[in-house]
Amino acid sequence: MKLLRYGPKGQEKPGTLDAEGRIRDLSGVVADITPDQLHGAALEALKAIDPTTLPLVEGQPRYGVPVNGSRKFIAIGLNFADHAAESNLPIPGEPVVFTKAITCLNGPNDDVIIPRGSEKTDWEVELGIVIGKPATYVTQDEALDHVAGYVLINDVSERAFQTERGGTWDKGKGCDTFGPVGPWLVTTDEVGDVQDLDMWLDLNGRRMQTGNTKTMIFGVAEIVSYLSEFMTLEPGDLITTGTPPGVGLGQKPPLYLKAGDTVRLGIQKLGEQGQTFVEWTR
Amino acid sequence: MKLLRYGPKGQEKPGTLDAEGRIRDLSGVVADITPDQLHGAALEALKAIDPTTLPLVEGQPRYGVPVNGSRKFIAIGLNFADHAAESNLPIPGEPVVFTKAITCLNGPNDDVIIPRGSEKTDWEVELGIVIGKPATYVTQDEALDHVAGYVLINDVSERAFQTERGGTWDKGKGCDTFGPVGPWLVTTDEVGDVQDLDMWLDLNGRRMQTGNTKTMIFGVAEIVSYLSEFMTLEPGDLITTGTPPGVGLGQKPPLYLKAGDTVRLGIQKLGEQGQTFVEWTR
Repeated sequence: MKLLRYGPKGQEKPGTLDAEGRIRDLSGVVADITPDQLHGAALEALKAIDPTTLPLVEGQPRYGVPVNGSRKFIAIGLNFADHAAESNLPIPGEPVVFTKAITCLNGPNDDVIIPRGSEKTDWEVELGIVIGKPATYVTQDEALDHVAGYVLINDVSERAFQTERGGTWDKGKGCDTFGPVGPWLVTTDEVGDVQDLDMWLDLNGRRMQTGNTKTMIFGVAEIVSYLSEFMTLEPGDLITTGTPPGVGLGQKPPLYLKAGDTVRLGIQKLGEQGQTFVEWTR
Repeated sequence: MKLLRYGPKGQEKPGTLDAEGRIRDLSGVVADITPDQLHGAALEALKAIDPTTLPLVEGQPRYGVPVNGSRKFIAIGLNFADHAAESNLPIPGEPVVFTKAITCLNGPNDDVIIPRGSEKTDWEVELGIVIGKPATYVTQDEALDHVAGYVLINDVSERAFQTERGGTWDKGKGCDTFGPVGPWLVTTDEVGDVQDLDMWLDLNGRRMQTGNTKTMIFGVAEIVSYLSEFMTLEPGDLITTGTPPGVGLGQKPPLYLKAGDTVRLGIQKLGEQGQTFVEWTR
């Protein structure tokens, strides 16, 4: 099943996609897609609905972030060997963990703001995990039972803020609008093998990133298990799992985003998203 | 004014402290102390209340985290020159920023769980900032207008997770229960000069940390202004501002917490808190 939220920012309604790819309105069934809808009987009840019985949504509304009320947005760095190489960093022995500020969440096709003073804003197509059931010290065998589904994420990054300003990467990862998520949350049963999904990203129509989740160094089960040693993962928590090669930092010379640039990205089964990059204005 | 939340975990009621240090029940006035209560007319209305007109709370109830619904818990590292020295790290040229997972929030006197496999759990008495008004690109001159008040925080840290497991500090800072906050949120008007507050921490009755907020490298106004360049700070966001020397890591030899240890800490005008450290059990 594909869960989504559509409509103007801050006024999104819950929806799902039917077999023909049309949005169906879920607001007669649930008030919103929240963490409470992502596990157990609530999720099963949503999955049991025949989309053709739901009202068809006309037109092409804006998509919002597909779940409302996530409390954590965690990220894994350098999770593709080729991307570690292009970043001139060693292949990590265990997952590199950092945090995207929760305020960076952005609709999948909304404009992304280049922060004031930024000269190194960059793109990263990534597979996102959405947690369904709370996870504390779960084994790799148990881990996927704690996942509700998957989302497409652009882990937008400011490389100077990330690595040239002291301290941890968090400074360059959580700027407002740096977390486009969606268009859909696709439930695990519909995704099937999450470790075999093609990924791509185009900048101004030119292919920059090509990859597949099968070359991730640490897979989804290992990431969920690993993170659950350091914190309890809650329903709705988002985990973005690292990017394949082809980011701006890895170009020779490096190539960064400027106002007016457009990025389009996708992951097999998870849909596509696109952003226009704009200057910050108060 | 001192704002607080009291009662069993998950069932806390809002309260305030009267001039005699007794808890007065605010639940007839507001349902809870939430980010919405921390600015503008809502905060002014709370401040205008005469505590003696509120019901007196009998006994000595548990304190909860004094604000419910915070979305970010950001931390500044190495913000006291002497602590940077004991950590064998240089004095930072700009604030070191990391993130405590929001799920680590803990009542000020609740037990703290030593994570599974931990051998280096450590203490850090810190001044916490609670944001009142949204802050994006605010100047240092404007910054304090965006602060609702201050709280006492123990920035509990697992040093091996923090620095020996690859990646950023976030792994060792956000374990469940690693964020005791409270007992009170003290509004800025009652605190006065936030850069002249004594700080202390005792381990099993022995003084380990002694400091004063006047020796912070980056003060509150600079921290709020700086962070607001990298993300929008929202009402309720917590920022913990770094610890003075005397942590376990800095002892010769290093000294870490074991089950049964008790820590007591305080900051002038912000009250005291104490935790017993316990083993993790499922």
